[in-house]
Amino acid sequence: MNFSSKLIEEGVNAFSSLPGIGKKTALRLVLHLLKQEKDITESFAEALLKMRSNIKHCKTCHNLSDSETCEICLDLRRDKEVICVVESIRDIMAIEETGQYRGKYHVLGGVINPLEGISPADLQIGSLLQRVDADQVKEIIMAISPTIEGDTTIFYISKQLKNRSVKISTIARGISFGGELEYADELTLGRSIVARVPYRKGSE
Amino acid sequence: MNFSSKLIEEGVNAFSSLPGIGKKTALRLVLHLLKQEKDITESFAEALLKMRSNIKHCKTCHNLSDSETCEICLDLRRDKEVICVVESIRDIMAIEETGQYRGKYHVLGGVINPLEGISPADLQIGSLLQRVDADQVKEIIMAISPTIEGDTTIFYISKQLKNRSVKISTIARGISFGGELEYADELTLGRSIVARVPYRKGSE
Repeated sequence: MNFSSKLIEEGVNAFSSLPGIGKKTALRLVLHLLKQEKDITESFAEALLKMRSNIKHCKTCHNLSDSETCEICLDLRRDKEVICVVESIRDIMAIEETGQYRGKYHVLGGVINPLEGISPADLQIGSLLQRVDADQVKEIIMAISPTIEGDTTIFYISKQLKNRSVKISTIARGISFGGELEYADELTLGRSIVARVPYRKGSE
Repeated sequence: MNFSSKLIEEGVNAFSSLPGIGKKTALRLVLHLLKQEKDITESFAEALLKMRSNIKHCKTCHNLSDSETCEICLDLRRDKEVICVVESIRDIMAIEETGQYRGKYHVLGGVINPLEGISPADLQIGSLLQRVDADQVKEIIMAISPTIEGDTTIFYISKQLKNRSVKISTIARGISFGGELEYADELTLGRSIVARVPYRKGSE
Protein backbone atom coordinates (compact mmCIF):
# COMPACT_ATOMS: atom_id res chain seq x y z
CA MET A 1 0.00 0.00 0.00
CA ASN A 2 1.11 3.53 -0.72
CA PHE A 3 0.53 5.59 2.44
CA SER A 4 2.23 8.79 1.17
CA SER A 5 3.11 9.41 4.82
CA LYS A 6 5.97 7.85 6.77
CA LEU A 7 4.14 8.42 10.07
CA ILE A 8 1.01 6.55 8.96
CA GLU A 9 3.14 3.76 7.55
CA GLU A 10 4.88 3.35 10.92
CA GLY A 11 1.55 3.30 12.75
CA VAL A 12 0.17 0.71 10.34
CA ASN A 13 3.29 -1.42 10.73
CA ALA A 14 2.96 -1.21 14.53
CA PHE A 15 -0.63 -2.49 14.50
CA SER A 16 -0.06 -5.10 11.81
CA SER A 17 2.77 -6.62 13.86
CA LEU A 18 0.05 -7.85 16.24
CA PRO A 19 -1.39 -11.33 15.59
CA GLY A 20 -4.49 -11.46 13.39
CA ILE A 21 -4.26 -7.84 12.27
CA GLY A 22 -3.45 -7.28 8.61
CA LYS A 23 -2.48 -4.08 6.82
CA LYS A 24 -6.07 -3.08 6.00
CA THR A 25 -7.34 -3.52 9.55
CA ALA A 26 -4.24 -1.73 10.85
CA LEU A 27 -4.97 1.21 8.55
CA ARG A 28 -8.56 1.34 9.80
CA LEU A 29 -7.34 1.47 13.41
CA VAL A 30 -4.76 4.14 12.59
CA LEU A 31 -7.32 6.32 10.83
CA HIS A 32 -9.66 5.83 13.78
CA LEU A 33 -7.01 7.10 16.22
CA LEU A 34 -6.19 10.02 13.93
CA LYS A 35 -9.85 11.05 13.85
CA GLN A 36 -10.05 11.12 17.66
CA GLU A 37 -8.50 13.69 19.98
CA LYS A 38 -4.80 13.32 20.79
CA ASP A 39 -5.39 12.29 24.40
CA ILE A 40 -7.27 9.15 23.28
CA THR A 41 -4.10 7.87 21.65
CA GLU A 42 -2.05 9.00 24.64
CA SER A 43 -4.19 7.15 27.17
CA PHE A 44 -4.24 4.10 24.89
CA ALA A 45 -0.44 4.01 24.70
CA GLU A 46 -0.12 4.75 28.41
CA ALA A 47 -2.41 1.85 29.41
CA LEU A 48 -0.30 -0.56 27.38
CA LEU A 49 3.02 0.76 28.68
CA LYS A 50 1.81 0.69 32.28
CA MET A 51 0.48 -2.81 31.86
CA ARG A 52 3.65 -4.14 30.24
CA SER A 53 6.04 -2.64 32.76
CA ASN A 54 4.06 -3.34 35.95
CA ILE A 55 2.64 -6.79 35.32
CA LYS A 56 4.17 -9.62 37.34
CA HIS A 57 3.94 -13.38 37.39
CA CYS A 58 2.50 -14.78 40.61
CA LYS A 59 5.42 -16.49 42.35
CA THR A 60 3.19 -19.36 43.47
CA CYS A 61 1.00 -20.28 40.51
CA HIS A 62 2.64 -18.24 37.68
CA ASN A 63 -0.64 -16.56 36.82
CA LEU A 64 -0.28 -12.96 35.60
CA SER A 65 -0.76 -10.62 38.52
CA ASP A 66 -0.56 -7.00 39.63
CA SER A 67 1.43 -8.00 42.73
CA GLU A 68 3.94 -10.67 43.78
CA THR A 69 1.15 -13.11 44.59
CA CYS A 70 -2.06 -13.21 42.57
CA GLU A 71 -5.55 -12.64 43.97
CA ILE A 72 -6.50 -16.29 43.62
CA CYS A 73 -3.48 -17.50 45.60
CA LEU A 74 -4.13 -14.85 48.27
CA ASP A 75 -7.80 -15.86 48.61
CA LEU A 76 -8.03 -17.82 51.87
CA ARG A 77 -11.55 -19.05 51.08
CA ARG A 78 -10.21 -21.13 48.21
CA ASP A 79 -9.20 -24.73 48.83
CA LYS A 80 -5.42 -24.92 48.56
CA GLU A 81 -5.44 -28.71 48.66
CA VAL A 82 -6.85 -28.86 45.13
CA ILE A 83 -4.75 -27.53 42.24
CA CYS A 84 -6.05 -27.17 38.69
CA VAL A 85 -3.13 -27.39 36.24
CA VAL A 86 -3.59 -25.33 33.07
CA GLU A 87 -1.49 -24.38 30.04
CA SER A 88 -2.00 -20.63 30.07
CA ILE A 89 -3.66 -17.87 32.04
CA ARG A 90 -6.41 -17.73 29.42
CA ASP A 91 -7.57 -21.13 30.69
CA ILE A 92 -7.79 -19.73 34.23
CA MET A 93 -10.08 -16.98 32.97
CA ALA A 94 -12.26 -19.52 31.14
CA ILE A 95 -12.58 -21.75 34.24
CA GLU A 96 -13.20 -18.76 36.54
CA GLU A 97 -16.02 -17.68 34.21
CA THR A 98 -17.84 -20.94 34.95
CA GLY A 99 -17.89 -20.25 38.71
CA GLN A 100 -17.66 -24.04 39.27
CA TYR A 101 -14.19 -24.24 40.77
CA ARG A 102 -13.02 -23.08 44.21
CA GLY A 103 -9.49 -24.49 44.35
CA LYS A 104 -6.16 -23.01 43.29
CA TYR A 105 -4.41 -23.02 39.91
CA HIS A 106 -1.00 -23.73 38.48
CA VAL A 107 0.03 -22.33 35.08
CA LEU A 108 2.49 -24.56 33.20
CA GLY A 109 3.20 -21.97 30.50
CA GLY A 110 2.62 -24.45 27.66
CA VAL A 111 2.72 -28.19 26.99
CA ILE A 112 5.59 -30.54 26.18
CA ASN A 113 6.20 -30.21 22.44
CA PRO A 114 9.44 -31.66 21.08
CA LEU A 115 8.73 -30.30 17.57
CA GLU A 116 8.66 -26.74 18.90
CA GLY A 117 11.55 -27.47 21.28
CA ILE A 118 9.47 -27.21 24.46
CA SER A 119 10.81 -29.72 26.97
CA PRO A 120 9.56 -30.39 30.54
CA ALA A 121 12.35 -28.11 31.84
CA ASP A 122 10.73 -25.15 30.02
CA LEU A 123 7.47 -25.62 31.92
CA GLN A 124 6.60 -24.84 35.54
CA ILE A 125 6.59 -28.49 36.58
CA GLY A 126 9.26 -28.30 39.31
CA SER A 127 7.34 -25.64 41.24
CA LEU A 128 4.15 -27.72 40.93
CA LEU A 129 5.87 -30.65 42.64
CA GLN A 130 7.10 -28.31 45.39
CA ARG A 131 3.57 -27.03 45.94
CA VAL A 132 2.21 -30.57 46.13
CA ASP A 133 4.66 -31.29 48.94
CA ALA A 134 4.39 -27.96 50.75
CA ASP A 135 0.59 -27.61 50.78
CA GLN A 136 -0.33 -31.28 51.28
CA VAL A 137 -2.27 -31.19 48.04
CA LYS A 138 -4.90 -33.92 47.83
CA GLU A 139 -5.98 -33.59 44.19
CA ILE A 140 -4.54 -32.31 40.96
CA ILE A 141 -7.00 -31.61 38.14
CA MET A 142 -5.41 -31.64 34.71
CA ALA A 143 -7.27 -29.07 32.59
CA ILE A 144 -4.99 -29.49 29.58
CA SER A 145 -6.00 -29.49 25.89
CA PRO A 146 -6.91 -32.96 24.61
CA THR A 147 -4.07 -33.13 22.08
CA ILE A 148 -1.12 -35.49 21.76
CA GLU A 149 1.12 -32.85 23.38
CA GLY A 150 -1.41 -32.29 26.17
CA ASP A 151 -1.71 -36.00 26.86
CA THR A 152 2.09 -36.33 26.87
CA THR A 153 2.32 -33.53 29.43
CA ILE A 154 -0.34 -35.14 31.67
CA PHE A 155 1.49 -38.47 31.43
CA TYR A 156 4.84 -36.85 32.29
CA ILE A 157 3.48 -35.00 35.32
CA SER A 158 1.61 -38.07 36.57
CA LYS A 159 4.86 -40.05 36.39
CA GLN A 160 6.65 -37.38 38.45
CA LEU A 161 3.90 -37.59 41.07
CA LYS A 162 3.64 -41.37 41.30
CA ASN A 163 5.44 -41.59 44.67
CA ARG A 164 3.18 -38.97 46.25
CA SER A 165 -0.27 -39.74 47.61
CA VAL A 166 -2.06 -37.20 45.42
CA LYS A 167 -5.13 -38.02 43.35
CA ILE A 168 -4.81 -37.02 39.69
CA SER A 169 -7.91 -36.34 37.60
CA THR A 170 -8.56 -34.84 34.18
CA ILE A 171 -11.52 -32.74 33.12
CA ALA A 172 -14.31 -34.74 31.50
CA ARG A 173 -14.20 -35.06 27.73
CA GLY A 174 -17.17 -35.86 25.58
CA ILE A 175 -19.96 -34.31 23.54
CA SER A 176 -20.58 -30.62 24.31
CA PHE A 177 -23.83 -29.61 25.95
CA GLY A 178 -26.08 -28.46 23.14
CA GLY A 179 -23.82 -30.19 20.60
CA GLU A 180 -25.44 -32.39 17.98
CA LEU A 181 -24.21 -35.96 17.72
CA GLU A 182 -24.10 -35.97 13.93
CA TYR A 183 -21.64 -33.05 13.88
CA ALA A 184 -19.32 -34.39 16.59
CA ASP A 185 -15.98 -35.73 15.35
CA GLU A 186 -15.57 -39.50 15.33
CA LEU A 187 -12.82 -39.59 17.96
CA THR A 188 -14.82 -37.59 20.50
CA LEU A 189 -18.01 -39.53 19.83
CA GLY A 190 -16.22 -42.89 19.96
CA ARG A 191 -14.49 -42.07 23.22
CA SER A 192 -17.66 -40.67 24.74
CA ILE A 193 -19.33 -44.06 24.14
CA VAL A 194 -16.40 -45.97 25.63
CA ALA A 195 -16.32 -43.64 28.63
CA ARG A 196 -20.10 -43.66 29.15
CA VAL A 197 -21.36 -42.85 32.66
CA PRO A 198 -24.31 -44.37 34.57
CA TYR A 199 -27.48 -42.32 34.15
CA ARG A 200 -28.57 -40.48 37.26
CA LYS A 201 -31.78 -38.49 37.43
CA GLY A 202 -31.04 -34.77 37.54
CA SER A 203 -27.37 -35.12 36.64
CA GLU A 204 -27.82 -33.58 33.20
CA MET B 1 -14.72 -11.47 31.88
CA ASN B 2 -12.83 -11.87 35.14
CA PHE B 3 -9.24 -10.81 34.53
CA SER B 4 -8.09 -11.04 38.17
CA SER B 5 -5.67 -8.22 37.26
CA LYS B 6 -6.47 -4.53 37.02
CA LEU B 7 -3.53 -3.97 34.64
CA ILE B 8 -4.70 -6.59 32.17
CA GLU B 9 -8.23 -5.24 32.36
CA GLU B 10 -6.99 -1.76 31.47
CA GLY B 11 -4.98 -3.13 28.55
CA VAL B 12 -7.99 -5.07 27.29
CA ASN B 13 -10.22 -2.02 27.63
CA ALA B 14 -7.69 0.05 25.68
CA PHE B 15 -7.65 -2.37 22.74
CA SER B 16 -11.37 -3.04 22.80
CA SER B 17 -12.09 0.69 22.52
CA LEU B 18 -10.81 0.41 18.92
CA PRO B 19 -13.40 -0.29 16.21
CA GLY B 20 -13.95 -3.96 15.34
CA ILE B 21 -11.97 -5.28 18.31
CA GLY B 22 -13.97 -7.10 20.98
CA LYS B 23 -12.94 -8.19 24.46
CA LYS B 24 -11.69 -11.61 23.34
CA THR B 25 -9.52 -10.25 20.54
CA ALA B 26 -8.27 -7.52 22.88
CA LEU B 27 -7.25 -10.14 25.42
CA ARG B 28 -5.40 -12.09 22.74
CA LEU B 29 -3.48 -8.94 21.74
CA VAL B 30 -2.71 -8.11 25.38
CA LEU B 31 -1.41 -11.62 26.09
CA HIS B 32 0.66 -11.43 22.90
CA LEU B 33 2.33 -8.21 24.07
CA LEU B 34 2.90 -9.67 27.55
CA LYS B 35 4.65 -12.69 26.03
CA GLN B 36 7.05 -10.47 24.05
CA GLU B 37 9.93 -8.45 25.43
CA LYS B 38 9.12 -5.09 27.02
CA ASP B 39 10.69 -3.06 24.22
CA ILE B 40 8.20 -4.47 21.68
CA THR B 41 5.36 -2.80 23.61
CA GLU B 42 7.44 0.34 24.06
CA SER B 43 8.18 0.73 20.35
CA PHE B 44 4.53 -0.05 19.54
CA ALA B 45 3.29 2.71 21.87
CA GLU B 46 5.99 5.08 20.67
CA ALA B 47 5.07 4.64 16.98
CA LEU B 48 1.43 5.49 17.77
CA LEU B 49 2.28 8.50 19.95
CA LYS B 50 4.75 9.85 17.38
CA MET B 51 2.22 9.39 14.60
CA ARG B 52 -0.62 11.02 16.51
CA SER B 53 1.35 14.07 17.64
CA ASN B 54 3.26 14.76 14.41
CA ILE B 55 0.67 14.07 11.73
CA LYS B 56 -0.71 17.10 9.92
CA HIS B 57 -3.47 17.80 7.44
CA CYS B 58 -2.20 19.09 4.11
CA LYS B 59 -3.28 22.72 3.96
CA THR B 60 -4.17 22.44 0.28
CA CYS B 61 -5.99 19.13 -0.15
CA HIS B 62 -6.59 18.09 3.52
CA ASN B 63 -4.88 14.74 2.98
CA LEU B 64 -2.99 13.44 6.02
CA SER B 65 0.63 14.42 5.69
CA ASP B 66 3.97 14.44 7.52
CA SER B 67 4.50 18.12 6.58
CA GLU B 68 2.41 21.25 5.95
CA THR B 69 1.80 20.26 2.33
CA CYS B 70 1.44 16.60 1.33
CA GLU B 71 3.70 14.78 -1.13
CA ILE B 72 1.00 14.66 -3.81
CA CYS B 73 0.41 18.43 -3.70
CA LEU B 74 4.17 19.05 -3.77
CA ASP B 75 4.67 16.78 -6.80
CA LEU B 76 5.18 19.13 -9.77
CA ARG B 77 4.78 16.30 -12.30
CA ARG B 78 1.13 15.92 -11.32
CA ASP B 79 -1.50 17.85 -13.25
CA LYS B 80 -2.86 20.54 -10.93
CA GLU B 81 -5.66 21.41 -13.34
CA VAL B 82 -7.48 18.15 -12.53
CA ILE B 83 -8.80 17.58 -9.01
CA CYS B 84 -10.28 14.29 -7.83
CA VAL B 85 -12.72 14.94 -4.98
CA VAL B 86 -12.90 12.11 -2.40
CA GLU B 87 -14.55 11.54 0.97
CA SER B 88 -11.56 10.33 2.98
CA ILE B 89 -7.86 9.77 2.66
CA ARG B 90 -8.53 6.05 2.37
CA ASP B 91 -10.00 6.73 -1.06
CA ILE B 92 -6.80 8.51 -2.09
CA MET B 93 -4.82 5.41 -1.15
CA ALA B 94 -7.19 3.19 -3.14
CA ILE B 95 -6.95 5.41 -6.24
CA GLU B 96 -3.17 5.76 -5.92
CA GLU B 97 -2.93 1.96 -5.80
CA THR B 98 -4.42 1.79 -9.31
CA GLY B 99 -1.67 3.98 -10.78
CA GLN B 100 -4.24 5.36 -13.26
CA TYR B 101 -4.48 8.94 -12.01
CA ARG B 102 -1.91 11.71 -12.28
CA GLY B 103 -3.90 14.74 -11.07
CA LYS B 104 -4.35 16.20 -7.59
CA TYR B 105 -6.87 15.35 -4.87
CA HIS B 106 -9.24 17.12 -2.50
CA VAL B 107 -10.48 15.42 0.67
CA LEU B 108 -13.97 16.52 1.74
CA GLY B 109 -13.84 14.74 5.10
CA GLY B 110 -17.23 13.08 4.59
CA VAL B 111 -20.46 13.54 2.68
CA ILE B 112 -23.52 15.66 3.38
CA ASN B 113 -25.67 13.65 5.80
CA PRO B 114 -28.48 15.52 7.57
CA LEU B 115 -29.34 12.45 9.69
CA GLU B 116 -25.84 12.47 11.22
CA GLY B 117 -25.81 16.25 11.36
CA ILE B 118 -23.14 16.70 8.66
CA SER B 119 -23.92 19.85 6.69
CA PRO B 120 -21.96 21.36 3.76
CA ALA B 121 -20.27 23.73 6.24
CA ASP B 122 -18.65 20.73 7.97
CA LEU B 123 -16.96 19.63 4.74
CA GLN B 124 -13.97 21.11 2.92
CA ILE B 125 -16.10 22.58 0.12
CA GLY B 126 -15.09 26.23 0.52
CA SER B 127 -11.41 25.48 0.05
CA LEU B 128 -12.25 23.37 -3.01
CA LEU B 129 -13.94 26.39 -4.64
CA GLN B 130 -10.90 28.53 -3.79
CA ARG B 131 -8.60 25.98 -5.43
CA VAL B 132 -10.76 25.87 -8.55
CA ASP B 133 -10.33 29.64 -8.91
CA ALA B 134 -6.67 29.86 -7.89
CA ASP B 135 -5.30 26.98 -10.01
CA GLN B 136 -7.51 27.44 -13.10
CA VAL B 137 -8.82 23.92 -12.60
CA LYS B 138 -10.25 22.42 -15.81
CA GLU B 139 -11.84 19.26 -14.47
CA ILE B 140 -13.22 17.98 -11.20
CA ILE B 141 -13.66 14.21 -10.88
CA MET B 142 -16.17 13.22 -8.21
CA ALA B 143 -14.96 9.93 -6.73
CA ILE B 144 -17.72 9.77 -4.12
CA SER B 145 -19.60 6.68 -2.91
CA PRO B 146 -22.73 5.95 -4.96
CA THR B 147 -25.16 6.48 -2.08
CA ILE B 148 -27.95 8.98 -1.59
CA GLU B 149 -25.66 11.09 0.61
CA GLY B 150 -22.85 10.87 -1.95
CA ASP B 151 -25.17 11.91 -4.78
CA THR B 152 -26.49 14.81 -2.67
CA THR B 153 -22.92 15.97 -2.07
CA ILE B 154 -22.06 15.79 -5.76
CA PHE B 155 -25.22 17.74 -6.60
CA TYR B 156 -24.44 20.40 -3.97
CA ILE B 157 -20.86 20.91 -5.17
CA SER B 158 -21.91 21.00 -8.83
CA LYS B 159 -24.44 23.72 -7.98
CA GLN B 160 -21.72 25.75 -6.25
CA LEU B 161 -19.53 25.44 -9.34
CA LYS B 162 -22.17 26.24 -11.97
CA ASN B 163 -20.83 29.75 -12.67
CA ARG B 164 -17.29 28.52 -13.21
CA SER B 165 -16.07 27.00 -16.47
CA VAL B 166 -14.98 23.74 -14.90
CA LYS B 167 -15.93 20.32 -16.24
CA ILE B 168 -17.45 18.01 -13.64
CA SER B 169 -17.28 14.24 -14.07
CA THR B 170 -17.99 11.24 -11.86
CA ILE B 171 -16.19 7.91 -11.85
CA ALA B 172 -17.87 5.25 -14.02
CA ARG B 173 -20.36 3.02 -12.28
CA GLY B 174 -21.43 -0.39 -13.50
CA ILE B 175 -20.66 -4.08 -13.25
CA SER B 176 -17.24 -4.85 -11.74
CA PHE B 177 -14.58 -6.45 -13.90
CA GLY B 178 -14.73 -10.16 -13.16
CA GLY B 179 -18.19 -9.72 -11.63
CA GLU B 180 -20.93 -12.10 -12.65
CA LEU B 181 -24.14 -10.56 -14.02
CA GLU B 182 -26.43 -12.88 -12.10
CA TYR B 183 -24.97 -11.74 -8.77
CA ALA B 184 -25.03 -8.00 -9.53
CA ASP B 185 -27.72 -6.04 -7.69
CA GLU B 186 -30.69 -4.90 -9.78
CA LEU B 187 -29.97 -1.17 -9.47
CA THR B 188 -26.39 -1.48 -10.68
CA LEU B 189 -27.33 -3.85 -13.51
CA GLY B 190 -30.29 -1.70 -14.56
CA ARG B 191 -28.23 1.48 -14.62
CA SER B 192 -25.35 -0.19 -16.43
CA ILE B 193 -27.76 -1.08 -19.24
CA VAL B 194 -29.16 2.46 -19.40
CA ALA B 195 -25.62 3.90 -19.35
CA ARG B 196 -24.26 1.44 -21.96
CA VAL B 197 -21.20 2.54 -23.95
CA PRO B 198 -20.37 1.89 -27.64
CA TYR B 199 -18.17 -1.15 -28.08
CA ARG B 200 -14.62 -0.41 -29.12
CA LYS B 201 -12.09 -3.12 -29.91
CA GLY B 202 -9.46 -3.35 -27.18
CA SER B 203 -11.32 -1.13 -24.77
CA GLU B 204 -12.07 -3.99 -22.38
